[in-house]
Amino acid sequence: MTTAIPANARRYGIVDAGFIERLRAFAGERVITATAVLEQHGRDESYHPGHAPDAVIRVASTEEVSATLQLCSQHCIPVVPYGAGTSLEGHIAAVHGGVCIDLSTMDQVLHIRAPDLDASVQPGVSREALNRQLRDTGLFFPIDPGANATLGGMAATRASGTNAVRYGTMRENVLALTVVLPSGNVIRTGTRARKSSSGYDLTRLFVGSEGTLGVITELTVRLYGVPETISAAVVPFADVPGAVQAVIEVMQLGIPVSRIEFLDELMMQAINRYSKRTFPQRPTLFLEFGGMPAAVAEQVAAVRGICAEHGGADFQWASDAAERAQLWDARHKAAYAAMALRPGARNWATDVCVPISRLAECIALAREDAAKAPFPTMVVGHVGDGNFHLPMLVDGDAPAEVVAARALNDQVVRRALAMDGTCSGEHGIGLGKMEFLLAEHGSEAIGVMRAIKHALDPLCIMNPGKMFA
Amino acid sequence: MTTAIPANARRYGIVDAGFIERLRAFAGERVITATAVLEQHGRDESYHPGHAPDAVIRVASTEEVSATLQLCSQHCIPVVPYGAGTSLEGHIAAVHGGVCIDLSTMDQVLHIRAPDLDASVQPGVSREALNRQLRDTGLFFPIDPGANATLGGMAATRASGTNAVRYGTMRENVLALTVVLPSGNVIRTGTRARKSSSGYDLTRLFVGSEGTLGVITELTVRLYGVPETISAAVVPFADVPGAVQAVIEVMQLGIPVSRIEFLDELMMQAINRYSKRTFPQRPTLFLEFGGMPAAVAEQVAAVRGICAEHGGADFQWASDAAERAQLWDARHKAAYAAMALRPGARNWATDVCVPISRLAECIALAREDAAKAPFPTMVVGHVGDGNFHLPMLVDGDAPAEVVAARALNDQVVRRALAMDGTCSGEHGIGLGKMEFLLAEHGSEAIGVMRAIKHALDPLCIMNPGKMFA
Repeated sequence: MTTAIPANARRYGIVDAGFIERLRAFAGERVITATAVLEQHGRDESYHPGHAPDAVIRVASTEEVSATLQLCSQHCIPVVPYGAGTSLEGHIAAVHGGVCIDLSTMDQVLHIRAPDLDASVQPGVSREALNRQLRDTGLFFPIDPGANATLGGMAATRASGTNAVRYGTMRENVLALTVVLPSGNVIRTGTRARKSSSGYDLTRLFVGSEGTLGVITELTVRLYGVPETISAAVVPFADVPGAVQAVIEVMQLGIPVSRIEFLDELMMQAINRYSKRTFPQRPTLFLEFGGMPAAVAEQVAAVRGICAEHGGADFQWASDAAERAQLWDARHKAAYAAMALRPGARNWATDVCVPISRLAECIALAREDAAKAPFPTMVVGHVGDGNFHLPMLVDGDAPAEVVAARALNDQVVRRALAMDGTCSGEHGIGLGKMEFLLAEHGSEAIGVMRAIKHALDPLCIMNPGKMFA
Repeated sequence: MTTAIPANARRYGIVDAGFIERLRAFAGERVITATAVLEQHGRDESYHPGHAPDAVIRVASTEEVSATLQLCSQHCIPVVPYGAGTSLEGHIAAVHGGVCIDLSTMDQVLHIRAPDLDASVQPGVSREALNRQLRDTGLFFPIDPGANATLGGMAATRASGTNAVRYGTMRENVLALTVVLPSGNVIRTGTRARKSSSGYDLTRLFVGSEGTLGVITELTVRLYGVPETISAAVVPFADVPGAVQAVIEVMQLGIPVSRIEFLDELMMQAINRYSKRTFPQRPTLFLEFGGMPAAVAEQVAAVRGICAEHGGADFQWASDAAERAQLWDARHKAAYAAMALRPGARNWATDVCVPISRLAECIALAREDAAKAPFPTMVVGHVGDGNFHLPMLVDGDAPAEVVAARALNDQVVRRALAMDGTCSGEHGIGLGKMEFLLAEHGSEAIGVMRAIKHALDPLCIMNPGKMFA
């Protein structure tokens, strides 16, 4: 039961048979200690090694989360909230053991309020499930990380995706949260008002807190009308600088594109192979335009002109909704496509975001560095936001590769920080970027974050060992 | 020197001659104790009585703010940050005395980075001053409370204004802050990246913290390209419900208007008189559309159709930039226009924000309640966000009026909360809404806010007596 708790964690209580019985008193068979389940719950989709928790509880309600946290507080047991397990920086590894709170079965869409353009959902609702339920309303929820993550997990990591350039990230699209604090007390942050100057912005504090401050058990999110007209296109470019420069000009001119994604030649090859497509294997932009018909036509004309000036002329249009869905499905599966290029390898994604004027230089230098790496790499990104990934397909059993990957990641991140960018555009800190958190914010700001952590979670039971070293 | 420190504040240190000398050691004549200056710095534009600080220091740099806070921490002296003094809930009243840090002379625009659509400014830069400096760049900063507030003050109160419906509030438009903590330590929150998943969102924590956690000494804000085409119009309606319903439909259809403001008949009368205009004195929308030419034409046609269905047909267009500027100047001066209707009266503004589906009902009931009040009231608001004000022109020397105003404000706020709205859309809590902060968030959430406050400001020297009772 007490698998692999590191020596420095002995200050935590032990999940023993008595403790399991207390959980089972209210959750019965939904408290699980089978090894396979524990291992599956301690490992995300990243290169980080897994750490199994000592128990998994599949919770059914805010009340059960509260009861679990009360017990864990009383016994000083670590708690790791779990959604779909799709995080990319080891967020759910139970490095100090403890209890994994699996929220994936709290998966009800509670209210869709079309006139107010908002919805309230349980945290286990996935982005695809929410959009399926919205299908007949004419509305949609835009935030779309590649994986079909849960909304609770997306809020916890401040996720974004391809639509962020137009619609913002989870930061802009969560109106209110229900959060269970480590004590078991339940709070609601925010209201359904679009804006507010009422008190500290607790919603934004919990969005991106990676399960280190509390457990999100309900979210109210913003919805948007599906645009009257939508056009999507794939545009190959002669070279990478041309494609990136086109993006920079589109953004600087303020053309309200819905999506503007860059993929380099190897990424296109991976997508063609994985999603059975026949796109030109050249540096490419995936574009989407949405709005009223004349506005879309105007945007398309403007972007066509900019692309042509930078060597991107051969627009391939997705003619209908089904074709558009296929196109974006291929883009969303980019990470899986990359991994399929080198079976058995792990995908170390990287995830920097820089001011747009530095993007071309940042990508060019990353590609120069990557050319020397002993493993395949590619570039894919939400370039309209200045955010890109350099997926590294690393053989985790080859120490030289791991060392080289760490060095390359380090180089890419430190360069982004020097450009006044961030070490993580959308994946978060987790286990993987704790040293960069310090490099980015400085020790005084980290001191403020730690003070907040200590104030809200004095026993440090919430997802310990993450974000802060 | 020690003016009117309430009895319950005796735990704070005294601003005596020795303390003043220590401030003067680095700030010289910029430390002021003249009564007129103290009184002017303790009073904002609201109905709240002023409380003069014991000293004002006109700071010149982050270093001076740090030195001031170190001294105040050592001697446990209250600190009130001051920008333009235009707040509306008594935010700057020095209810426990102490030192007012006047940041208005830290008024330099430090960097305008047009390619990145951002600028870094000192906190004393006003919104109008920033936009004057941006004039030749083709860019603008959209957040526009009525008053010509400073950007530091606007961040501290999470301000918004007429453009929020399209561009968001200070919450969405501050990228990074330099903040001096109560200890005197200096942190930077955020980077110039458009999005980030790196650590707790300290930027959003300080935005809206009303000077209770630290002093903002630099801001990096987002800029936007001035749209290629801009059209503005004034549209009178037959009645209030028609005008509000038109707004609701525009928002529900997702038409990306730049501004959509409601003013009732008395508000129009006040504006006509104060700004020497001849608008029809009927319930009215002020509208603005911006974008590429065809997009604007399309938006205008759609909104015209919606307005016509609800009794708003007679569009009066502002034909050029000068006329548009006049139109919005009249709108921005609405609060001053209201006050001019009843010379000597104070403007108790109210400031609720509700989900858009409840807006018509909320405004109608507020007007019903207001009709019984013993003083003039009107309705004006950023209705696209669900935010409106019910300015009450109250004779502060007539106790019956003050009692009635308090009761009416209470009624409007509690109704907004019952509709899952907020007690403050953009003015903040200050002295005026502390009880509503509790009603809105509940004691557990307030406990979290207090825990954060205590963690960052253990001596409680930062703007004490505000936000939390």
